[in-house]
Amino acid sequence: MSSSVFPVLISGTWRQAEMIQYFSAINPMTKVQIDEFYPVSSKQDIFETIKSAAIASRELLNISPSKRADFLEKFADRIENRKEEIVKMANQETGYAIEPRLLNVELPRMTDQLRKVACAVREHSWTMPVIDTGVNIRSLNQSLEGGIAIFSPNNFPLVFNSVGGSDFAGAIGAGNSVICKGNPSHPGTTRLLAEEAHEAIKETGMPLNTFQLIYHMEESIGLILAGSPDIGAIAYTGSRKCGMTLKASAEKTGNPIYLEMSSANPVLILPDAIKKRDSQIAEELVKSCTLGTGQFCTKPGLVLVFKDQFADEFIDKVKKLMEETPDGVLLSESVMIKLDENVGHLREAGARPLTGASRNEASPGYSYKNTLLTIEGSQFIEKSSDFQIEAFGPQTMIVIMENVEQAEKIIELLEGNLTGTIYSETSEEDKLLYERLVPLLTRKVGRITNDKMPTDVAVVTSMNHGGPYPATGHPAFSSVGIPFSMQRFSMRKCFDGVSDERLPVAIQNANPDKIWRMIDASWTTDSIE
Amino acid sequence: MSSSVFPVLISGTWRQAEMIQYFSAINPMTKVQIDEFYPVSSKQDIFETIKSAAIASRELLNISPSKRADFLEKFADRIENRKEEIVKMANQETGYAIEPRLLNVELPRMTDQLRKVACAVREHSWTMPVIDTGVNIRSLNQSLEGGIAIFSPNNFPLVFNSVGGSDFAGAIGAGNSVICKGNPSHPGTTRLLAEEAHEAIKETGMPLNTFQLIYHMEESIGLILAGSPDIGAIAYTGSRKCGMTLKASAEKTGNPIYLEMSSANPVLILPDAIKKRDSQIAEELVKSCTLGTGQFCTKPGLVLVFKDQFADEFIDKVKKLMEETPDGVLLSESVMIKLDENVGHLREAGARPLTGASRNEASPGYSYKNTLLTIEGSQFIEKSSDFQIEAFGPQTMIVIMENVEQAEKIIELLEGNLTGTIYSETSEEDKLLYERLVPLLTRKVGRITNDKMPTDVAVVTSMNHGGPYPATGHPAFSSVGIPFSMQRFSMRKCFDGVSDERLPVAIQNANPDKIWRMIDASWTTDSIE
Repeated sequence: MSSSVFPVLISGTWRQAEMIQYFSAINPMTKVQIDEFYPVSSKQDIFETIKSAAIASRELLNISPSKRADFLEKFADRIENRKEEIVKMANQETGYAIEPRLLNVELPRMTDQLRKVACAVREHSWTMPVIDTGVNIRSLNQSLEGGIAIFSPNNFPLVFNSVGGSDFAGAIGAGNSVICKGNPSHPGTTRLLAEEAHEAIKETGMPLNTFQLIYHMEESIGLILAGSPDIGAIAYTGSRKCGMTLKASAEKTGNPIYLEMSSANPVLILPDAIKKRDSQIAEELVKSCTLGTGQFCTKPGLVLVFKDQFADEFIDKVKKLMEETPDGVLLSESVMIKLDENVGHLREAGARPLTGASRNEASPGYSYKNTLLTIEGSQFIEKSSDFQIEAFGPQTMIVIMENVEQAEKIIELLEGNLTGTIYSETSEEDKLLYERLVPLLTRKVGRITNDKMPTDVAVVTSMNHGGPYPATGHPAFSSVGIPFSMQRFSMRKCFDGVSDERLPVAIQNANPDKIWRMIDASWTTDSIE
Repeated sequence: MSSSVFPVLISGTWRQAEMIQYFSAINPMTKVQIDEFYPVSSKQDIFETIKSAAIASRELLNISPSKRADFLEKFADRIENRKEEIVKMANQETGYAIEPRLLNVELPRMTDQLRKVACAVREHSWTMPVIDTGVNIRSLNQSLEGGIAIFSPNNFPLVFNSVGGSDFAGAIGAGNSVICKGNPSHPGTTRLLAEEAHEAIKETGMPLNTFQLIYHMEESIGLILAGSPDIGAIAYTGSRKCGMTLKASAEKTGNPIYLEMSSANPVLILPDAIKKRDSQIAEELVKSCTLGTGQFCTKPGLVLVFKDQFADEFIDKVKKLMEETPDGVLLSESVMIKLDENVGHLREAGARPLTGASRNEASPGYSYKNTLLTIEGSQFIEKSSDFQIEAFGPQTMIVIMENVEQAEKIIELLEGNLTGTIYSETSEEDKLLYERLVPLLTRKVGRITNDKMPTDVAVVTSMNHGGPYPATGHPAFSSVGIPFSMQRFSMRKCFDGVSDERLPVAIQNANPDKIWRMIDASWTTDSIE
């Protein structure tokens, strides 16, 4: 068997893993095992990977930014050249539709992101150069010492893949070496991406060990990786439980760790908005909760409405749309089991199911019925943490609030979230409620959206895909949006009294590349005379 | 007794502490207790403080930035009005000379820092506004939820005092409420500053609980404070041992913690520099090691030289200057004991003392002889962590290296440091050594200085007073330099599809205050038409 197990990419070479077992992905649409075998790596593999990444981290200091950019672009080109095979594999492994999801949305977004980072690398502006000419002190961001370990989630096989996703692009863009820990639910997709990345590495003359790939490891070995003193930083997207364990291990050694863990993404619908636009909002809500079978980190899982007849009608409409929307396929059996468990926990705490709330046994795949729950505001206040469990999948829960005082209390009790959404009219009533409630909600979330669901996360500089703990591990960092997604993987460096020719290019006097730099408190692309 | 114990400032009022004991400062120049009594607060005090800070954190949302700036400036004015009394008290409590240290250096630097933050608050630029007009997504930094707990060090009674120092200015400037945990070695100085700050709060109409003051608490209670879910962030400057304990407590709850822990501040002197400038470099080194009795976080504690006759002569000169320089007074008995212990550890590991290395028993105060140790490069390589103990005080250790290969290994083995210094000539030999060694050294430090000692930390935007772990807790943050020292105490907020009048002022279309903003990837002070 071991000879037909796919190799790992360690120290720049595809080689057989020092494995302790092997695994296969399962097609969630059919529950049938996919006939490819991938290794679960042992400690030896991980130690070798860490060591090689640290060496690569040094070698990369001598690689020009434009070469890094070339690699990212070449990789994007190669992904496009092999896109049919990649999306077909991703479809088999995740159950996501080839069109539009994988081919028309996720893959173009992935390559766009790689190219945007390449552009930022060429521009140097992401290094945030600051110069004070009077004292000749200059600073900028540079890559970290040691590799960046990326633990990627199951729900974005392309855009957040440990190979080629947002963290990968940011970390490589900032000049780091990377250790990719693939998500075990889509090893084939990861392999295809890694094959292309490795070829692009060779084509562009980057160090062969710039990135390495481990498909799977036991949790205890993941903790060794995160806690290694030879690692530069860790990026993790996934469950809170696993994230917290990695966090403890990383922080014990002083390693920065960037976590995206869970989020209920509260949606506050003000009375006049519900009165005037209930059908439209209900449609947007259900679409947002069922898109990708609800497997988005920005899925709205908690909807806050004020008790009145319009709210009742709104809830009926949501229920009806939930029932009309075909149940999707979930990423894996464990996602289905976990969703069922969490819906169970919410029900135990007192949530009433209006529709769904059980497995879709009729489906040939892993499927769960689109689920709508409701609770009263007073219930939420009484057991607020029980009601903030993230039920990952096609589910949402509507909280029916008595009045604005109750709304205030509920918002106060919210944990940190990625997003907070408000639907409102410009009427006096909604205006007053907005002014009273939204400042409180803003404190709890990384991004406020108005009159649109939070599901879409645009890859623009102004994006913040982050938020207060426990949505993430630190409220000042964003995992999407360039240059901020790159800056996470860097350290600040200051050069104090260093002569011009010894400085990094981006903070020398001359500025032929027109880099944005803050010189004596003003931003400029000028050179220093 | 309890009635003559100074009150704490909690919830906006000076009131008697719920204390478990009381303490006094000791004049380190005379070893005589200062006749003032300060409380060690119990849990009750801390719980009340945390709660009140969280309330203040909300109230501050309705306070205009200009009022925050007014407060910082008024506070600076009041410090200057009471400066004779403040520096006299600081002198009694720390043993630092009134002139030049306290009156001419530290106090002006403190008030300058407060005013610079005030200026940044008025400018709004510290919030780093980013706008993408095409998608109408806008983001900026805002204050944290919950108070900022500041644990301040013993060695800067003014510039890093929990009341009015760098962390205080940054946290208040960013719109936060603050819990000041005074350093127990200078409670009187802290009290005077807090009295002035409190009056300035009242004069400018800031919420009375914007900042609170606890003089002292047991370690276990400090851990409760750092680990409270109602705290926004923690700033700590002090020993690594205590910092690591606070770090673990804070991070368990997901609280950001900014630590400045310890640093050996390696100084690499290249052969031609030592050949040509040995007297000058020796003078700079000894001055830097004995300034403030060596109690700077940027004191050069590790000097790397290449073995040759010039290095021998240099070492002799350093030794002679160390002996000629009068021994200073240390901040406290415990600093003296710790220094003695750490010099002992270095000697046990094999370091040879050339001068000093024992207490100055002749001094009426807490004093230690200026201390010079040396070791061979091979010794350092063998026991590199033993030789990287920070011996806080007037001490340095010279490592005599055989050759460049050994130098490389030694630099590889360095822990994270705040600074790294290189003295070099422009000769071919030094140039080659610089090119080979400095890129490695740069990876290990937050700031590179050339041909000057690292002791001085200019308060400019380009400063980085930070560095890789264990010098600090995160290599991307600086505790000195505006706006970066403020940004630590903030979270990123994104507004996605929000109409202009509902946006924070700094990211609205109009820009009457000429705030620097990144609009569609270019920095500008223009409005959006």
